[in-house]
Amino acid sequence: MTEHSTPAGRRSGGRAGRAAMRAQGVVERVPYLTRTMKPFEILSEEALSAIEYAADSVLEEVGIEVRDYPEALPMFARAGAIIDGTRVRFPRGMCRELVSGNAPSQYTQHARNPQNSVVIGADHTVFAPNYGSPFVHDLDQGRRYATLADFQNFVKLANQSPWLHHSGGTVCEPVDVPVSKRHLDMVYAHLKFGDKPFMGSVTAGSRAADSVELARIGFGGDLQDRTVMTSLINASSPLVWDGTMLAAAQVYAENNQACIITPFILAGAMAPSTSAGVAVQTLAEALAGMAFTQIVRPGAPVVFGSFASSMSMQTGAPTFGTPEPALVLYTVAALARRLGVPFRSGGSLTASKLPDAQAAYESANTLQPTVLGGVNFVLHAAGWLEGGLAIGYEKFILDCDQLGMMHTFVRGLDTSENGLALDALRTNPPGNHFLGTSHTLANFETAFYRSDTSDNSSYEQWSEEGSLDASQRANALWKRRLAEYEAPPLDDAIDQELVEFITRRKAELPDEFA
Amino acid sequence: MTEHSTPAGRRSGGRAGRAAMRAQGVVERVPYLTRTMKPFEILSEEALSAIEYAADSVLEEVGIEVRDYPEALPMFARAGAIIDGTRVRFPRGMCRELVSGNAPSQYTQHARNPQNSVVIGADHTVFAPNYGSPFVHDLDQGRRYATLADFQNFVKLANQSPWLHHSGGTVCEPVDVPVSKRHLDMVYAHLKFGDKPFMGSVTAGSRAADSVELARIGFGGDLQDRTVMTSLINASSPLVWDGTMLAAAQVYAENNQACIITPFILAGAMAPSTSAGVAVQTLAEALAGMAFTQIVRPGAPVVFGSFASSMSMQTGAPTFGTPEPALVLYTVAALARRLGVPFRSGGSLTASKLPDAQAAYESANTLQPTVLGGVNFVLHAAGWLEGGLAIGYEKFILDCDQLGMMHTFVRGLDTSENGLALDALRTNPPGNHFLGTSHTLANFETAFYRSDTSDNSSYEQWSEEGSLDASQRANALWKRRLAEYEAPPLDDAIDQELVEFITRRKAELPDEFA
Repeated sequence: MTEHSTPAGRRSGGRAGRAAMRAQGVVERVPYLTRTMKPFEILSEEALSAIEYAADSVLEEVGIEVRDYPEALPMFARAGAIIDGTRVRFPRGMCRELVSGNAPSQYTQHARNPQNSVVIGADHTVFAPNYGSPFVHDLDQGRRYATLADFQNFVKLANQSPWLHHSGGTVCEPVDVPVSKRHLDMVYAHLKFGDKPFMGSVTAGSRAADSVELARIGFGGDLQDRTVMTSLINASSPLVWDGTMLAAAQVYAENNQACIITPFILAGAMAPSTSAGVAVQTLAEALAGMAFTQIVRPGAPVVFGSFASSMSMQTGAPTFGTPEPALVLYTVAALARRLGVPFRSGGSLTASKLPDAQAAYESANTLQPTVLGGVNFVLHAAGWLEGGLAIGYEKFILDCDQLGMMHTFVRGLDTSENGLALDALRTNPPGNHFLGTSHTLANFETAFYRSDTSDNSSYEQWSEEGSLDASQRANALWKRRLAEYEAPPLDDAIDQELVEFITRRKAELPDEFA
Repeated sequence: MTEHSTPAGRRSGGRAGRAAMRAQGVVERVPYLTRTMKPFEILSEEALSAIEYAADSVLEEVGIEVRDYPEALPMFARAGAIIDGTRVRFPRGMCRELVSGNAPSQYTQHARNPQNSVVIGADHTVFAPNYGSPFVHDLDQGRRYATLADFQNFVKLANQSPWLHHSGGTVCEPVDVPVSKRHLDMVYAHLKFGDKPFMGSVTAGSRAADSVELARIGFGGDLQDRTVMTSLINASSPLVWDGTMLAAAQVYAENNQACIITPFILAGAMAPSTSAGVAVQTLAEALAGMAFTQIVRPGAPVVFGSFASSMSMQTGAPTFGTPEPALVLYTVAALARRLGVPFRSGGSLTASKLPDAQAAYESANTLQPTVLGGVNFVLHAAGWLEGGLAIGYEKFILDCDQLGMMHTFVRGLDTSENGLALDALRTNPPGNHFLGTSHTLANFETAFYRSDTSDNSSYEQWSEEGSLDASQRANALWKRRLAEYEAPPLDDAIDQELVEFITRRKAELPDEFA
C-alpha cells in the first residue's frame, strides 16, 4: 500500500518528494486532468441536431416558468424573450446565441494556492468531491446525520488526495449548524482546511454574497475580477427556474464567479422516461439558465450541467450506474461541446447504502462515461452513497483511488521508442521473462498505477492479513489520513478577518434549522 | 427484484413469456449483442502503424520459438518462413497476408439450439463465462477446490442467464476428475445442461479430437463443416508457441472449428512493462499463431485474442481493472480491426478474493473498455475472482446483471419521435411531474434496465429487509436459479451415444491428476 498524501501547502513536495513518489510508483500530481483522447461519441450530427431542434421548440412553445423572482422577467424581456405572466418563452436560437456568443469555452478557477488553480473546459477534467448529503456513513458507526466536524474531515481528506482537484462545496450538510449560518462555516472550512478551489453557497442570494465576501477576504482582500468560485445552480425540473437559485446565480455572475447551471432530473418523474427526452429537456432548461447568466454579465463563466438518473419503475426510487444515465451523459456532453461551453456531469454515483459491490459497479459505470465522455467538471467524484443522501468515509477513499487510475488512463498509450520497447523485445530471448531487463528496470518505478486500496496479494497472504474486504482496508486508510493531516498555511491576519466577518454575520442572522 | 431465467429450450418463452418479460421491464433476449456505436479509439493511425511495424520487426528479427511440435516447422517453411532449429522467423508482412487474406472477418458459431447461434466478429459482442479456475468461492463455504458438480452448476447458470450468449469452456477445473478424462465430462456438461455455443478442450491434440467427436455426436452426427466450437489457444509468452496448443489448434482448424489465438501476458514479466510494448508483442505472437491456423486450413475461423494484465511491482502479483490493461485493450482492438479478424479480450476481471467493492470496481473497469473497445468475444464475462484462480457464485450473478446493462447500453439513444418525447414536453405543464402522462405510461414497461441485484429502496426499507449487501442478495439469487433450473431438451439417442463414447474413451485413458 502506498500513501498518497501530499505534503501540506506544496504540490509536489520538491525534489525529494518527487523521488519518493516515483519510488512508490505514484505519478506526479497534476492540478487537473488533460485528456489525450477524443470523447466517445454515441450519436450522429443529425441526431444531435434533432435534439437541439426539439429543445428550441420547447423553449419557444412551452418556455420556462420563473418562480418567485420577478426581477428576472424584465431582464429576459430586454434580451428578446416573450413574457407571459411568469412564463418566459424564447425565440428559436435566442438562448444559444446568448450562450455561444458570450460565455467562455474554458476558464481558470483560481485557488488560494496558485499551484492548485484549475482550468475548467476544453480537454480538461476537474474532480470535486460529493455534494449535499445530510448523512454520513462509516463502517464503525453506520449511518448518522452529518456534522460540521464531518464536513471539515472531508475537506481535509479532499485536500490531501492527489486525485481530487477541487475542494467541492457542501461536501455534506453540517446539520448541527443552523441553515441560516451554515454557509459561513462551510466556506470558512474550505479556506481554512484546504487550499484547492471550492464552491460557494447557493441557498439564498445573500448567502452567495456572503460567499463572495469570504472569498474576497480569503484571497487577500481583492479578487481583481478573478473567478475563485464555481457554484451549483440547479433547475426545478421540469422547466422551472426558482428565485433562490436565480438570485444566487445573479450574485455570482455579477461578480464574475462561475455557475454550473444544472437540470437535476430523475427520468420518468421530472422528465420523460425516454433518454432522448431527458436530453431535450436538459438542454432546454440549461440553455435558459445559462442565458440568464449571460444577460446578467456577458462573458461570465458558466458551465452546462446535467444530472440525470433513472428511476425504479417499481418503487419510484432513483437508480444510478445504469445504462440510461450513461447514454444521457454521452449525449449531453456532445451537446455542450457544440455549444462551446464547459460541461459538468457524472461522478461516482450509486444507490447503495454501503461501500459494497453494488456501490462500486454503479460508481465505475458512472465514472467511465464521465471521463470518456469528456466531462470538464465532475461533482460527486468521491464519497457518494445512497443516491446522494449519504457521504461515506470508506467510499470516499475507494473512489479517490479510482480517480487516481483515471489520471493514468487519460494520458493514453505512450508510443515513443521507450514505450514500444522494440530494443527490449529484440534482445530478450523467447521464453525468458523481462523482470531483470534494463528496459524493465528503467521503467519499473512508473510502469503501473499503484492502487492503495486494492489487495493483489496471494489468497494465503490475504488470509493471514485478516481476509479484509476493500471497505475494511479503506476504513484504516481514512483514519490514517486524518491523523496525518496538516493544514495548509493561512495568513493569520486573513484568518482573523474571516473569523470576524463570520462572527458578525452570525450575530446578524437568526437561527434557522429548516 | 426480477427473475431473468429463461424457460428451458425456448429463447423468448413465446408470446406469454414476452409479455411477462415486458411487464418485468426485461428487454427481449438477443442471442448476441450488436453495437450501434463506433468503438472508442485512443490512438492515431500513425501510432497504430508504428506498433504494426514494430511487431513485424519482432517477427522478422527475433521470430517465434516453436516448442515440442516439429510438425509445425515444415508447414511454416512452406508458407515462406525462415526456420533456424526451432526458431521461426517471418518475412515482413507474411503473417498479416496469411491472416487478412484468408481468415473470415466474422463467422457463425452454431449452437445446439439454433436460436442460440452467435455471430462472432464485426459489430457483434458475445459474452461467455469465466474460464480455467481451479477454485470456487461462495459466501457459505468460502474458497475450495472446484468439482464437476460446480462445473455443471455454472453451465446451468450460464444457460439460464439471458445476458450470457455462450456456455464457455473450462468454466472451472473439475479437479475431482482425472486431468486425462476431464475434457470428456466438461464437453458433455455443455451439451447436456446447456444449449448455447461452447468451447472445446485444448490441453492435448487428442482431447481436441475428442471434443470434435463429442460435438459431432451432439449436433446429430454430422457437423457439415459448421463451426460449433470456439476454443482457447494461448501462447507461452514471450514469443513461444508450444506443441500442446499448436496440436489442438491444428485439430480445430482442420475441422473448421474456431481458435482464439491469445497471448496471455502479465506485463513486466512475460512482456515489457510499457503498454505499447505489450501491444507490439501481443500482435507479433497473435499474428504467428493466427497464421498457423491459416496454413493448416485457409479460411478457418480464427479470433485475435489478447489477455494483458499489469503487475504489482512490489509483489509481482497480477493486477486487474487498472488503467494500463484498458489502454492495451483499446489498442489491440484497433489492431484487430485493421487486420480484419474478430477480437477477443476483456471480461469482468479482478484480483479480489471476494465479491466486494474491489471486485466490482475492477470488473467494471474491465467490462467498460471491453464493450466500448468493440471486443467481439468476451471470455471471463461472469464469475472471475482472484486473478482467475477462483470462480465465485455470487460474483457470477452480480456480473451477469452488469452484462444485462450492456445489452441496453449498446442499443444507444433512441432519437425517434417517441424517444425525443417532444409531444410529452409540449403538453406537460412546467413544474408538473411526468409520472402519469400518456408518454410515460406508454414507455413505462421498457423505459429502464431493471437490475436484479441492486437495491434501490429507501434506507429504512433496506434496513427492514436485513441491511443486505450486494453479495448477500446474490447468494440468495444463485440458489434460487439453480433450484428453478430446467435442462434444455436433448434427444435420448444422442445422449446415449455421447455417454457411450465417453465411457469408451474413459476406459481407454489412464487416470492422471497432473
